[in-house]
Amino acid sequence: MINKKAKGSKGERELVKFFNENGWVCVRVAGSGSSKYPSPDILAGNAMRRVAIECKVTKETKKYFTNDEIEQLRTFSQNFGAESWVSIKFPDEPWYFLTLEDIENTGKCWSVSLELARRKGFKIEELMETNTLNQNI
Amino acid sequence: MINKKAKGSKGERELVKFFNENGWVCVRVAGSGSSKYPSPDILAGNAMRRVAIECKVTKETKKYFTNDEIEQLRTFSQNFGAESWVSIKFPDEPWYFLTLEDIENTGKCWSVSLELARRKGFKIEELMETNTLNQNI
Repeated sequence: MINKKAKGSKGERELVKFFNENGWVCVRVAGSGSSKYPSPDILAGNAMRRVAIECKVTKETKKYFTNDEIEQLRTFSQNFGAESWVSIKFPDEPWYFLTLEDIENTGKCWSVSLELARRKGFKIEELMETNTLNQNI
Repeated sequence: MINKKAKGSKGERELVKFFNENGWVCVRVAGSGSSKYPSPDILAGNAMRRVAIECKVTKETKKYFTNDEIEQLRTFSQNFGAESWVSIKFPDEPWYFLTLEDIENTGKCWSVSLELARRKGFKIEELMETNTLNQNI
């Protein structure tokens, strides 16, 4: 049985592999979920852009990000000079990438439904092709 | 007894703490020593600068970096848009930070002696104050 944390790490490694094998560099951040300092799950970039990403893998049709996760991501990106993105892997779907402007804040947390991801999300190839720098949002 | 890897991670965490408590953001890279993709040990930055750092802790008076470690650091930095630095902690000395231009290439590897570190190295406060962007060297 694969636990939740291992499943998340496996998902992150998939993204690291894809970015690296398609002309970007990409690394996983150590202990990102438990650090007391702002940190995303992964960092990717090419010479023009840098993206900080909070990743989730789920078996459900809706996934939540805590206020703290989003706040850490935003703080890190603002101070590092990176774009903030969340990415979600639903079963039998590609990874979807969404900006913080496009995810829903319920007040208590942030949520992304499969329907929202399909409607607003970028696929990884699209993320890598966008020229709009949503830096520091 | 503390093993070599744990000692290295402890050293990296010291740097992460210092950067974060002094107005920068900083993260450790997961599995940087064993990744098949280019990756530094730590990444730090403020809104103006980003630095990729390969770190070593030693009890000796000279420390070596493999050609592969330096090549990975250089490749990562060039593709990510970061400055390349190595940092070394000798006993009873502060952390010293050196550019790749200032470390010695023996052909087989790269080396930094305590004497070289004292002569050419920046202390962390100095690194954080430098305005010279030695990007992509």
